[in-house]
Amino acid sequence: MAEQEVKLIGMWASPFNRRVELALKLKGIQYQYIEEDLSNKSPLLLKYNPIHKKIPVLVHNGISVAESLVILEYIDETWQNNPILPKDPCIRATARFWAKFVDEKILQTGHKISMAEGEDKEQLIEELDQNLKLLENELKGEELFGGEKIGYLDIVAFFVAHWFQVASEELTQMEVISEEKLPFLHKWLRKIREIDVVKECLPPRDKHVAFIKARIEAAKSAPK
Amino acid sequence: MAEQEVKLIGMWASPFNRRVELALKLKGIQYQYIEEDLSNKSPLLLKYNPIHKKIPVLVHNGISVAESLVILEYIDETWQNNPILPKDPCIRATARFWAKFVDEKILQTGHKISMAEGEDKEQLIEELDQNLKLLENELKGEELFGGEKIGYLDIVAFFVAHWFQVASEELTQMEVISEEKLPFLHKWLRKIREIDVVKECLPPRDKHVAFIKARIEAAKSAPK
Repeated sequence: MAEQEVKLIGMWASPFNRRVELALKLKGIQYQYIEEDLSNKSPLLLKYNPIHKKIPVLVHNGISVAESLVILEYIDETWQNNPILPKDPCIRATARFWAKFVDEKILQTGHKISMAEGEDKEQLIEELDQNLKLLENELKGEELFGGEKIGYLDIVAFFVAHWFQVASEELTQMEVISEEKLPFLHKWLRKIREIDVVKECLPPRDKHVAFIKARIEAAKSAPK
Repeated sequence: MAEQEVKLIGMWASPFNRRVELALKLKGIQYQYIEEDLSNKSPLLLKYNPIHKKIPVLVHNGISVAESLVILEYIDETWQNNPILPKDPCIRATARFWAKFVDEKILQTGHKISMAEGEDKEQLIEELDQNLKLLENELKGEELFGGEKIGYLDIVAFFVAHWFQVASEELTQMEVISEEKLPFLHKWLRKIREIDVVKECLPPRDKHVAFIKARIEAAKSAPK
């Protein structure tokens, strides 16, 4: 392949950004990482993602791709070594279905929990537990969603699950994904955390906890 | 390819369902259509989409695929004649980006408009206009998003745009996608409507209007 210029515009704490970083690392793609200040968005971000003005954005030979799930597909189609998506159309469809479920159900519920109080909060926590249970069932007793190797759904779900786990451990002294309630998902989380290339993509714990706390405070005080 | 058994569980008025029907027809795939009564969900639907219990569901040789965008990708990967998604990874990524935009921005705003009143409603209509303008810009003066042939983004956006157009013409005597405001999108909508295979996928007008009216009434009287 001809010389490649790959840039990633991201933000260190974002699970969406970390998905893309992990995919690039798994494929061994050299890239320049550009940290974005989301409180003062750069002309570069506005140029490359004028529609949503959000990270992550992958810029490949001057052409930009936005939205983390779209970027993962792009990376997998462009660099075909170490495939991320399953080969079989049916298993691919299942992985895409669950990736959508993670973003639309699990992540959204987690976001609502951070802003809710009282009965509403209890109901949302119950909903999150049920959705995580559905995700766990999809593991079907396997160690990874990708089978023997870390794959698309592992990448998509891991950084969301890791965020929830850090937030719940630190803020409530309980685990959302505990060994008792979600044994397979708990094991999956630990397994992925032990992969060297994943370790490189984990935000520093203290900084991450401070960030999550600040974010929850900001969300609570924002106008409804 | 060996003998295929293809079933589509759908609902006649759903733009998500119509996307899948159109893709199947464009590829010339024979399928059995099963109309679902969403007010009394069938054991078949609950069996094949136990997670969301929603249509459309494609059942191919006994294996089910849910979520319209996921189904479109599955169809395109499984039956490779008349490709729906663009071949080039970059153009594919752009099409996927805008499909997500249609579902998350345009469709959601339309849904909120049907329930809103007063100033909120005006603001949402303004937002919808802006989002449709962004989509129009993406046409870049072309007749179709897919270039010379109807493609993925045409299929995804068309049934949503058609629904909005029917609803606005019939309920407000104005067009959301008018020739003055959105000339290219207006032309695109007319062009797609004239394609024979698309005509087969359009819900009967009177029945469609009655359905949209009933839905808006139901949404307005539902608890917030």
